[in-house]
Amino acid sequence: MTSTHDAQQHAAQQHAVQSPSSTGTGYPTPAWTKAYHQGSRPDLRVPYREVRLGNGRTVPLYDTSGPYTDPAFEPDVRRGLPPLRDGWIGQRGDTEDYHGREPRPEDDGLKHTAPRGGLGLANLDAVFPGRPRRPRRACAGAAVTQLGYARRGEVTAEMEFAALREGMEPELVREEIAAGRAVLPANVNHPEVEPMLIGSRFLVKINANIGNSAVTSSIEEEVEKMSWATRWGADTVMDLSTGRNIHTTREWILRNSPVPIGTVPLYQALEKVDGRAEELSWEVYRDTVVEQCEQGVDYMTVHAGVLLRYVPLTAGRRTGIVSRGGSIMAAWCLAHHQENFLHTHFEELCDILRAYDVTFSLGDGLRPGSISDANDEAQFAELTTLGELGRIARSRDVQVMIEGPGHVPMHRIRENMDLQKELCDEAPFYTLGPLTTDVAPGYDHITSGIGAAMIASWGTAMLCYVTPKEHLGLPDRDDVKTGVITYKIAAHAADLAKGHPGAQAWDDALSDARFEFRWEDQFNLALDPETARAFHDETLPAEPAKTAHFCSMCGPKFCSMKISHGIRESFGDGTAPAGGDSAVEAEVEVEVGMRAKAEEFRSSGGRIYLPLAD
Amino acid sequence: MTSTHDAQQHAAQQHAVQSPSSTGTGYPTPAWTKAYHQGSRPDLRVPYREVRLGNGRTVPLYDTSGPYTDPAFEPDVRRGLPPLRDGWIGQRGDTEDYHGREPRPEDDGLKHTAPRGGLGLANLDAVFPGRPRRPRRACAGAAVTQLGYARRGEVTAEMEFAALREGMEPELVREEIAAGRAVLPANVNHPEVEPMLIGSRFLVKINANIGNSAVTSSIEEEVEKMSWATRWGADTVMDLSTGRNIHTTREWILRNSPVPIGTVPLYQALEKVDGRAEELSWEVYRDTVVEQCEQGVDYMTVHAGVLLRYVPLTAGRRTGIVSRGGSIMAAWCLAHHQENFLHTHFEELCDILRAYDVTFSLGDGLRPGSISDANDEAQFAELTTLGELGRIARSRDVQVMIEGPGHVPMHRIRENMDLQKELCDEAPFYTLGPLTTDVAPGYDHITSGIGAAMIASWGTAMLCYVTPKEHLGLPDRDDVKTGVITYKIAAHAADLAKGHPGAQAWDDALSDARFEFRWEDQFNLALDPETARAFHDETLPAEPAKTAHFCSMCGPKFCSMKISHGIRESFGDGTAPAGGDSAVEAEVEVEVGMRAKAEEFRSSGGRIYLPLAD
Repeated sequence: MTSTHDAQQHAAQQHAVQSPSSTGTGYPTPAWTKAYHQGSRPDLRVPYREVRLGNGRTVPLYDTSGPYTDPAFEPDVRRGLPPLRDGWIGQRGDTEDYHGREPRPEDDGLKHTAPRGGLGLANLDAVFPGRPRRPRRACAGAAVTQLGYARRGEVTAEMEFAALREGMEPELVREEIAAGRAVLPANVNHPEVEPMLIGSRFLVKINANIGNSAVTSSIEEEVEKMSWATRWGADTVMDLSTGRNIHTTREWILRNSPVPIGTVPLYQALEKVDGRAEELSWEVYRDTVVEQCEQGVDYMTVHAGVLLRYVPLTAGRRTGIVSRGGSIMAAWCLAHHQENFLHTHFEELCDILRAYDVTFSLGDGLRPGSISDANDEAQFAELTTLGELGRIARSRDVQVMIEGPGHVPMHRIRENMDLQKELCDEAPFYTLGPLTTDVAPGYDHITSGIGAAMIASWGTAMLCYVTPKEHLGLPDRDDVKTGVITYKIAAHAADLAKGHPGAQAWDDALSDARFEFRWEDQFNLALDPETARAFHDETLPAEPAKTAHFCSMCGPKFCSMKISHGIRESFGDGTAPAGGDSAVEAEVEVEVGMRAKAEEFRSSGGRIYLPLAD
Repeated sequence: MTSTHDAQQHAAQQHAVQSPSSTGTGYPTPAWTKAYHQGSRPDLRVPYREVRLGNGRTVPLYDTSGPYTDPAFEPDVRRGLPPLRDGWIGQRGDTEDYHGREPRPEDDGLKHTAPRGGLGLANLDAVFPGRPRRPRRACAGAAVTQLGYARRGEVTAEMEFAALREGMEPELVREEIAAGRAVLPANVNHPEVEPMLIGSRFLVKINANIGNSAVTSSIEEEVEKMSWATRWGADTVMDLSTGRNIHTTREWILRNSPVPIGTVPLYQALEKVDGRAEELSWEVYRDTVVEQCEQGVDYMTVHAGVLLRYVPLTAGRRTGIVSRGGSIMAAWCLAHHQENFLHTHFEELCDILRAYDVTFSLGDGLRPGSISDANDEAQFAELTTLGELGRIARSRDVQVMIEGPGHVPMHRIRENMDLQKELCDEAPFYTLGPLTTDVAPGYDHITSGIGAAMIASWGTAMLCYVTPKEHLGLPDRDDVKTGVITYKIAAHAADLAKGHPGAQAWDDALSDARFEFRWEDQFNLALDPETARAFHDETLPAEPAKTAHFCSMCGPKFCSMKISHGIRESFGDGTAPAGGDSAVEAEVEVEVGMRAKAEEFRSSGGRIYLPLAD
């Protein structure tokens, strides 16, 4: 009663949140346009980004930006995104809506006596004003998880959608999910999500963390960061808010997010007990999980592998326990001298997550926080437990991924991947970097991007980004972009190394544009067209320079690419000895070709530079 | 006659160049101080950087910044750096000074009719005003190269100096140089250089490219970029100038550089024939090499492996020849239908370089310029030739390193390292990245930093940096810093992976500072203290926050590091079961410890947060 009253008071503060569109919702260049693949049913339209080139061709790219980049869509953060999956979920007939849990002031960290407004609430409704919705959950006994459907041989609309995004067969997607080697995180209460896959057979995905803390940040900023991160390529977003307004922030993010949203329910549970870890209980935690399941969280980090007996293994470490979730549970274990309640209640937790199709992200609470602590006994002991928990979850039809480190020197990264595959039955691995050195705070997007690319090339399915502010502060808008772009680089480099079908076509298109001096196409094919264009314009700002057959590195007088065009004209594309020809054939061909062509080269005036034609 | 007249006219323009000190020559933080190891003779003092911590300890770090960061040194770019090696070279008694080649206007790309001033000359003397110096070269027949001394069993002062920097035995250094597995680039005419090593047994080194071009940049900027790059950690600098004033720019850089300077003499030779590659000749090239040897260039990129018969192999490539040197020589070969004159005159070139102890950097003129072209026939054919040329050079006592790619997807990097070792007898490999994807112009420091870290971890001895402006424009001061820091990360991550003795002590010191909330020490131990401090202050600017026992990520209420301190207090450092203990012993110890300690934990009030003491 009181809680709804509180909520209504907040709802009365009718000020529109700043729309993401007002700060530039569209793509960063008009050459990117939204396009759709049509699936097997009219309501199954799979978005992708089409890059239009100056030569009339187009390059299709995977797109995570959601409806915001479709000019036909009118964004309104107060209404939220269209519930894409509503029909699919409803038609399966295995879920029901119900009254749900009543929101309470403490969901937002508020006491009855707490002052109103402040901390980001001033311009927001506490309760999301969009379409009124009752939560949905599985009808009694039903396994409404994508794993459940896959095991029963059913290719869901979600699977087809995700398969089309990847350019893969839907049946392959179903097989990978059924085997537990891929997950499709999609809570039945997050119908806005555009289904996507996390698994080593598919494109490497990246996650962007956002979230306010007690120190700084507001709800508006977090919603804006979410749409900003997805515009640059974040495949999922984790809301790691720790201060007040956790419930409300999450509601706004979920209703406006086209990508799966992950959380660490323990953070909110801790707020509910005023930050005293020893006062946590399974009951408070369970209540928080249900609250978040009903809102639509797609995956949850659960630190159920931090066992009582593992805690002392960290005492001799250089940097102890650096995972917040891990240290909360360690403190609880110490205070109670009992086994981690997430572990003792794990099967009950499975049954809750199963009812909403929430995917487990089994957290590595004992991950190393320094190069010195990498791959130690505590870390791998926990990994063994995560493997066991994964089997329990899958036996109950709950999707599972496994979280990984952290800080690991390059030569010890491979062991993490190999052990994870072995101990966790090839469940998708989801790593934080790893950072390959500790000496560069301010540049940990780079120290970790190196490790991320390596571990992804060996099979890690999703990479949690690290921003330049890691270890130092909370990322702002620029940091989020830098983190996302850095991790898109790591993910794509790994896709190339894994030989993902079609991955190299993007590089080839950009390289062609570079070789043919199509500067605008180079910019538009870049991960970040704005930055590429701005950097070019610093040296050669004039418009004609963007069609010039030279660049600022060599200047107009000499340019290696122009000389290469001369060589290609001399020898032709097809007549050149290819790698597969026999050496003898090649040499003869060279000799004959050389005499004729070199003469031609000289008689044409011996010019090594092509004219500056368009 | 006319040329010296020209030079004197330029000399008359007496305006002091902006001193690097005036734009901040010192270290970026007062916690970094210059210190010296005393060698076996009074004039052998090896500089290092000492980081002073708040707890009274110090951490010694390798330092490349030269005398500029010694408060006892008064920088004056018009006088140049002290000639550290003059005594060592003179005492060996195997070199002589001589009249040397007369400077000519065309050395600076000037015609007799060219206008004076402009293009950066306005504020500079064309002739370096510092100590008048006649060039030095080997007495007839003498092998004055470090390779020559090493083979004769002599540990030179340069070797001892470099060994002390690395914390290695001088005899090991001599052995590695004698075997051709390491080089110590130190022209007898660059006495200002602080000797350093490039070889897989030693710390991974990085090179920063600078250089003006016809489009932009000035001499002042290039001298400033050199000292700026070395302040952040560049181990060598390549001057790749291509416009006017090449000779003069180089002179100023050399006289002020504490690190080895590399060049591509072909670029200047091309300027001398007005950019017409077909008009190049061995004579023009040789003259340019002698000019640069006399100035003191320490290593030269020579594209002697671009053979006539390899050129057609590039015709079918996606991006042809992207190396400027490679394409110049390819154009020359095509125009003349003759073998590359650098190859036909290679032995004569060896004899010139030997007389000054200039190190070869055998250029990979056919390196791939796109992911699509990686590891192709043209590239590896040239690598085979570079291996052969390396053997010729070493047979004449000339030091050699081998240049490598370029653009290579992650899964194809290892092949480059393995083949190079095999074909080039483990001569030091010096790679440009490699870039692991083509899709991120504007972020190629990152795409290449990934590849650089990987290839260095497998043995590449020096990494040529790539800045964010790669493919787009000329790097400015900020880009140079970003490129250097990124590559220091790659190099150090590789040092950790290679297990270089002492490399991890740096990471450990920083991790300790992090765990103990010594914020100032964290900043000061960072590769870039300025950025680390600035990022922290964005969120928590107040001075007390730098000693606070929390950071902005978790806020004051909950902090994982604080909980870890609680665990350490509960279990102690030494009593914790270590990784080496038997599992049974460990479990018993845990059980006993847990009961007692957990009770202690609770009875102390169950507080999981330590008091905010200093």
